[in-house]
Amino acid sequence: MFNAERCSAILDEVRARTPLVHNITNYVVMNNTANALLALGASPAMVHAAEEVAEFVALSQALVINIGTLSTPWIESMRIAATAANGRGVPWVLDPVGAGATALRTETAAELALLRPACIRGNASEIMVLAGATADKTRGVDSTRASGDAVAAARHLAKSTGSIVAVTGAVDYLTDGEQLIALANGHPLMARVTGLGCTATALVGAALAVEKDRLAAASAGLSFLAIAGEIAAEKSPGPGSLQLHLLDALHQLDAATIQRRLKVVA
Amino acid sequence: MFNAERCSAILDEVRARTPLVHNITNYVVMNNTANALLALGASPAMVHAAEEVAEFVALSQALVINIGTLSTPWIESMRIAATAANGRGVPWVLDPVGAGATALRTETAAELALLRPACIRGNASEIMVLAGATADKTRGVDSTRASGDAVAAARHLAKSTGSIVAVTGAVDYLTDGEQLIALANGHPLMARVTGLGCTATALVGAALAVEKDRLAAASAGLSFLAIAGEIAAEKSPGPGSLQLHLLDALHQLDAATIQRRLKVVA
Amino acid sequence: MFNAERCSAILDEVRARTPLVHNITNYVVMNNTANALLALGASPAMVHAAEEVAEFVALSQALVINIGTLSTPWIESMRIAATAANGRGVPWVLDPVGAGATALRTETAAELALLRPACIRGNASEIMVLAGATADKTRGVDSTRASGDAVAAARHLAKSTGSIVAVTGAVDYLTDGEQLIALANGHPLMARVTGLGCTATALVGAALAVEKDRLAAASAGLSFLAIAGEIAAEKSPGPGSLQLHLLDALHQLDAATIQRRLKVVA
Repeated sequence: MFNAERCSAILDEVRARTPLVHNITNYVVMNNTANALLALGASPAMVHAAEEVAEFVALSQALVINIGTLSTPWIESMRIAATAANGRGVPWVLDPVGAGATALRTETAAELALLRPACIRGNASEIMVLAGATADKTRGVDSTRASGDAVAAARHLAKSTGSIVAVTGAVDYLTDGEQLIALANGHPLMARVTGLGCTATALVGAALAVEKDRLAAASAGLSFLAIAGEIAAEKSPGPGSLQLHLLDALHQLDAATIQRRLKVVA
Repeated sequence: MFNAERCSAILDEVRARTPLVHNITNYVVMNNTANALLALGASPAMVHAAEEVAEFVALSQALVINIGTLSTPWIESMRIAATAANGRGVPWVLDPVGAGATALRTETAAELALLRPACIRGNASEIMVLAGATADKTRGVDSTRASGDAVAAARHLAKSTGSIVAVTGAVDYLTDGEQLIALANGHPLMARVTGLGCTATALVGAALAVEKDRLAAASAGLSFLAIAGEIAAEKSPGPGSLQLHLLDALHQLDAATIQRRLKVVA
Repeated sequence: MFNAERCSAILDEVRARTPLVHNITNYVVMNNTANALLALGASPAMVHAAEEVAEFVALSQALVINIGTLSTPWIESMRIAATAANGRGVPWVLDPVGAGATALRTETAAELALLRPACIRGNASEIMVLAGATADKTRGVDSTRASGDAVAAARHLAKSTGSIVAVTGAVDYLTDGEQLIALANGHPLMARVTGLGCTATALVGAALAVEKDRLAAASAGLSFLAIAGEIAAEKSPGPGSLQLHLLDALHQLDAATIQRRLKVVA
């Protein structure tokens, strides 16, 4: 079960424990992702060298792997880090950015998805490609499908990988293969700021660091961002303002706001 | 001919078609550039691995190559991507950041300039170096020359490469080797925000994706940024505010604003 | 001696000379660091390829080396650049991000610290590790120690390396091994914005570019950021706003503000 009380309790735990979240992520979003994790109350680090990722995972409470600006040396680091995380019991999240756009992305995402991430978060196209549910051609890194189209694919992917699968869009869907949670927070202007999907994935990492119920943790991570994003959008004439107010809103997020805003629609 | 109607029509096309703009650009500006493309209405992607750039170019409507944080593996990707773009008829733009500062930059920029970019956008020093017009020593990545000093070099470079050449500064000059367009929008505070030249190049990419008249497209791309920048500067006490308001202004840019603001001075 | 007059004089010199500051820094902070240097009045460049760093150092007035997102090819560039800087008399600053967290970081930081940086700036954990004063385990890239705990380690490190050592935290301490300066500007909300330590290091680079008294220069660099940060924090409901107002405040920083705000407490 996921509701406002649960969501607030996970937020409180993040702030109380300030988990170290190790990110191997893309160049575009490193700064925003780090700032979003700090604004929420976690402690981010971006560390990618093959020589040190296993050692760094061992210090961390969660790991985030995002393939946005992929290259061969980084794939090797992602493999090492995911394996080390599994060996240490450190939960990790996969963001398969652009899976379906190129063979390198599809193959890398599929390989990593089989390394037992606690959660996989993508848009509809990415999740459908990963699920092998379709030969759907993705268009760059933005989705050509609505998130609802990918629910069946998400259930399938969750069952085959053992991961929580989260498909984000106008409505966010999360499933462990059986249960389905649907969340309806957020705002269309958020799609005009780069990397908010990547930021959602990072916040899921922070939540997984402090909460063993993975479905609740992933739901909380997405809700933190979607609620902060809708608060920010309401006072923003454009995407420049939204990015600023989003970080302020994450910093100010509290139980009363979550209680008033959270929309669990299934 | 380039005027406000033409500029607005290109903006409308960008928003109607949301072209996928593939960027191989520098680490410093990846986030801003992506955000500026999104704020304008295009769909950005940052993809640089040699294994996937050709495949990604084939999905894209324009390619942007920027040598700001150059390294050997990236040069190879730039070559592959430019060649693939030419093969597919995808227009591409070159930003020769820091040409003249080091041999690696000068040689790489010169090699890429000969791979038939639709447009080359640089500051006066970079364009003069590329044109071989002078043994001018550039100073880091900022120009030591005023943009007007480079007009003859720009014409020469346009003729030798077949590219539109754009020299940006207090006044922006564009030429196909014969015609010359001069644009006088912008604000001095824009020079205190990193990477706005790179952002101009990216917006030229978005315009080239939807408009076959390359001189008009490049003029539109520079005008979008310069007009949004001057609107932003008017309400900004410093460069932090400018960056935010610039993205908001790009998002809100419309035909009436372009009509009122655009300064085509030649 | 360091006081408000000295600090303002160094600021005036930065603005008068607009020194080219060459940064080999981490992906997370490249954009902010460049923007902070521009807002202050310096001219930043981010250049990391082994093939060109020596050539670029020769054009620069200062060099900043930051190991935040370390990898093997970059270590080689750092070595080359530091050596070239020493050969040319270009002052350089070291930011040993995460020293102590992994063997790669500790060893790289220690090796670079012995290449005669003009200044080493870190948090308490990093400086204590570098000084070998303790087997202290750092926690990710955030410090587990208060800056005052590291004063003895800082003196030791300054003596063994010949560098000015700066330990930043709630109070910033600087020493040449003998003299000690303590500065009490700043605001706790600054810790919720990523990379402000890295930004402090970069501003020390700008100050060293124009001032031969290294202890005064390093004190000025840290003061520019801490004063701008506290001005920004006073008007910021969260870290998103702080980042924006910080750049505006650096741009607007003047002698009167420094006179009114600077807190030299030892």
